[in-house]
Amino acid sequence: MQFDLKTTDDKSKARAGVITTDHGTIETPIFMPVGTVATVKGVHQTELKNEINPDIILGNTYHLYLRPTTTILEGAGGLHKFMNWDRNILTDSGGFQVYSLAANRKITEEGVKFKSHIDGSTHFFSPENVMEIQRSIGADIIMAFDECPAAMSSYNYTKNSMDMTHRWLKRCVNHLEKVPPKYGYNQSLFPIVQGGVFRDLRKQSAEFISSVEADGNAIGGLSVGEPAEKMYEMTDLVCDILPEDKPRYLMGVGTPINILENIALGVDMFDCVMPTRNARNGMLFTAHGTINIKNRKWADDFSPIDEMGITFVDTMYSKAYLRHLFASKEMLGKQIASIHNLGFYLWLVREARKHILAGDFSEWKAKMVKQMDKRL
Amino acid sequence: MQFDLKTTDDKSKARAGVITTDHGTIETPIFMPVGTVATVKGVHQTELKNEINPDIILGNTYHLYLRPTTTILEGAGGLHKFMNWDRNILTDSGGFQVYSLAANRKITEEGVKFKSHIDGSTHFFSPENVMEIQRSIGADIIMAFDECPAAMSSYNYTKNSMDMTHRWLKRCVNHLEKVPPKYGYNQSLFPIVQGGVFRDLRKQSAEFISSVEADGNAIGGLSVGEPAEKMYEMTDLVCDILPEDKPRYLMGVGTPINILENIALGVDMFDCVMPTRNARNGMLFTAHGTINIKNRKWADDFSPIDEMGITFVDTMYSKAYLRHLFASKEMLGKQIASIHNLGFYLWLVREARKHILAGDFSEWKAKMVKQMDKRL
Repeated sequence: MQFDLKTTDDKSKARAGVITTDHGTIETPIFMPVGTVATVKGVHQTELKNEINPDIILGNTYHLYLRPTTTILEGAGGLHKFMNWDRNILTDSGGFQVYSLAANRKITEEGVKFKSHIDGSTHFFSPENVMEIQRSIGADIIMAFDECPAAMSSYNYTKNSMDMTHRWLKRCVNHLEKVPPKYGYNQSLFPIVQGGVFRDLRKQSAEFISSVEADGNAIGGLSVGEPAEKMYEMTDLVCDILPEDKPRYLMGVGTPINILENIALGVDMFDCVMPTRNARNGMLFTAHGTINIKNRKWADDFSPIDEMGITFVDTMYSKAYLRHLFASKEMLGKQIASIHNLGFYLWLVREARKHILAGDFSEWKAKMVKQMDKRL
Repeated sequence: MQFDLKTTDDKSKARAGVITTDHGTIETPIFMPVGTVATVKGVHQTELKNEINPDIILGNTYHLYLRPTTTILEGAGGLHKFMNWDRNILTDSGGFQVYSLAANRKITEEGVKFKSHIDGSTHFFSPENVMEIQRSIGADIIMAFDECPAAMSSYNYTKNSMDMTHRWLKRCVNHLEKVPPKYGYNQSLFPIVQGGVFRDLRKQSAEFISSVEADGNAIGGLSVGEPAEKMYEMTDLVCDILPEDKPRYLMGVGTPINILENIALGVDMFDCVMPTRNARNGMLFTAHGTINIKNRKWADDFSPIDEMGITFVDTMYSKAYLRHLFASKEMLGKQIASIHNLGFYLWLVREARKHILAGDFSEWKAKMVKQMDKRL
């Protein structure tokens, strides 16, 4: 994997770059649509590629491990072939879902024992087997196995957890050397900075993670319930420590405004379920604010969903029609809203990139943040 | 509306024709995908047009009247504009849903009082207001308001019901003359032959319906639980009476085999929820039989969904992938199966038409019926 930093903004720490992997290039900043269990919910691969057009999507190791299972994924020749997606994929380590979804989890130095949220069956994740699982899935970028402590964890809990995450990272790196990629292309391991909302822990973690000299680095444990200002403070601090010549990935973030603010702090990569999950609940993101399409006020608004027309759904369907589909609990409503929101998120990061390259990112960002901070 | 009968098969009563309306031509025999409430469930209008490619779809008056309501549809300029579908639409009369879905229905000579299956609110359908509702919806082909008796209704109930349906038809015809179309294009009323499974009633009804000299004629009250042989017997009898120079529409039928058998008896138009409803339950129709994609046997079958590749989903996704989506209860599974099944149904009627025109329909039909009558 290669990362070319094209430019850094004068008035902020925003960067524009290009990541190159065996599955092609990724222009940064980038937003990665979440394809939890080998599907971006409600979106055909054709629509994902031709309409939303991301250079990379994300899959969830925890979900893919449980279903379809690594046996099936290996039979298919990896996740790319299984789901018919020939661009880049990143998989998380499964850690976050183990802590948020699985039942009866027990964390020890060795790893995490947990019960499946689907059938209650018992499983065990360790740094070693999570690396093996990610080899079987075959994503281009794979994540180190970490512990992601809850938002309100104490200093001591967070510190001990961070130290263990660092020890686990070494085990991940060591084990990957023993288990080569399965499908003839490279996989890059990204380690994860932890440390909660504590400045000294974040600093320690960022320094340790930097010392590993990985192809790219991630910031985890944010956007888990802390105030946005605290998230920005931590991102700011960590980005100043992480190497400049490697991409930085802020995990699980966030609203369109969160994304622009974090781009300004030096983050290159994002993922979040928000555009698709909120879409399924009838919430649309637009350049001029958010729309709750279930609201009665849209019932006779026959204007296009979004005049901007980023994806085909925006001008093909009216607000009244989409509102009717949600009122009638029709699948097509969720499908339309998902494509719209993902199209908008990708438009947003692409526009950010254009403005970084053009040198007017900060002015544009200030205008957009103001403009998007409304309910229509 | 115009109907040009192109050819009739030598060895059966199968016909190939062309219907021309203000929204374009419809090549018959045709299958009409069901777009219940202004959406063919799980299918984008782009996919419907470009992949499945029917000349006409069906909407349900009962559902559209309750949601989005005729007020909204009029505001949009009719159903075509509301859902952005510029080809033909047919609406049923709402009768069938009132009998099958609504609660506390009370049928009198005047009409039917019923409670909405959504919120229990009370409504009244009469031949007159159903014509007005269908004017507001604005389909190209609209259906007379009829009573569709249950499958096991007695001779006397069926006879009385049929006589009332005939009286209602006159009221429909009279009222339509007073209420002109709303959107600048014509709407053709199709009356409906009833009479249950009783030969003399079906004959009487077909004769009465023929005497109205409508643009086209429908056969209702079949495929409601009677044996397939009984349905074929009734269709056969009725098609011999209905005028040859008008299209014949068999309502709510059926399996791919039912469709081929009824084409052989002289039916030109079909609609059924089966391809989409069964799709959502994981049942796929193919030229070589049906597939229950939820079955474990498909879990590691990485071959395309359907080698025939009628629509893009058939070769883009594998059986194993589709099976995984159903196992994981992912929306995309229903979307894929719906496009596949509708694509197959449309392929089937188009192939039937080709073979009628080529003069080898009967041989082809015999081969297909045998071939499709399997579980894969």
